[in-house]
Amino acid sequence: MAEGVEIEAGLAFTPRFNAEGLIPAIATDHATGAVLMVAYMNAEALSATLESGWATYWSRSRQALWRKGETSGHTQRVVEMRVDCDQDALLLRVEQLGAACHTGERSCFYRRVESRDALRRVPPA
Amino acid sequence: MAEGVEIEAGLAFTPRFNAEGLIPAIATDHATGAVLMVAYMNAEALSATLESGWATYWSRSRQALWRKGETSGHTQRVVEMRVDCDQDALLLRVEQLGAACHTGERSCFYRRVESRDALRRVPPA
Repeated sequence: MAEGVEIEAGLAFTPRFNAEGLIPAIATDHATGAVLMVAYMNAEALSATLESGWATYWSRSRQALWRKGETSGHTQRVVEMRVDCDQDALLLRVEQLGAACHTGERSCFYRRVESRDALRRVPPA
Repeated sequence: MAEGVEIEAGLAFTPRFNAEGLIPAIATDHATGAVLMVAYMNAEALSATLESGWATYWSRSRQALWRKGETSGHTQRVVEMRVDCDQDALLLRVEQLGAACHTGERSCFYRRVESRDALRRVPPA
């Protein structure tokens, strides 16, 4: 198959990292389907996640590998990982212990965009 | 409030675009909650989405504004837009007409990561 077709239709996992060596990963609650957070993985974080079964990201602010919940206890056991058509985004269905968000909210998406400049706090989707 | 606190706890919408001027946007099916796709918006795409109510992205491959479905007819009417804690990711709950994925699949996440190098085709989550 041509490269583009292979990436989209093939069964080889060839994740495409961006210029910074990162791929976005969306974590959803495997039970409810709620979107919990978006974080980034580098190749090392992806390997660690696949090997351990625990969601592990690359912290852009700390520039360090970050096993989710390693300090908070709010771990994410990966139930399933999926990749999108062009293999430049990951979807993790996880068993979330406690809050996914460091603010203490279950999900990071606790505010609705009401207008060009205003937000409103809303219950989980 | 200090800037970090204001970004996370405030009700001002101040989206943070990355170095390329983009912010990732996750589209989910508002009825089922299924994650449909991940795309990117620049400031213009975000404005167009808010003004029109139709999901509009920035096509990185075509380097052009892209109203989802403008050629395929597979439009996304935005039911709700949310932003995450640090305001660098968007969540769009949409009314998806037809397939969200250009491959014809309902969702772009039609393959599960089985191992470090293998994928498996799976039904929608």
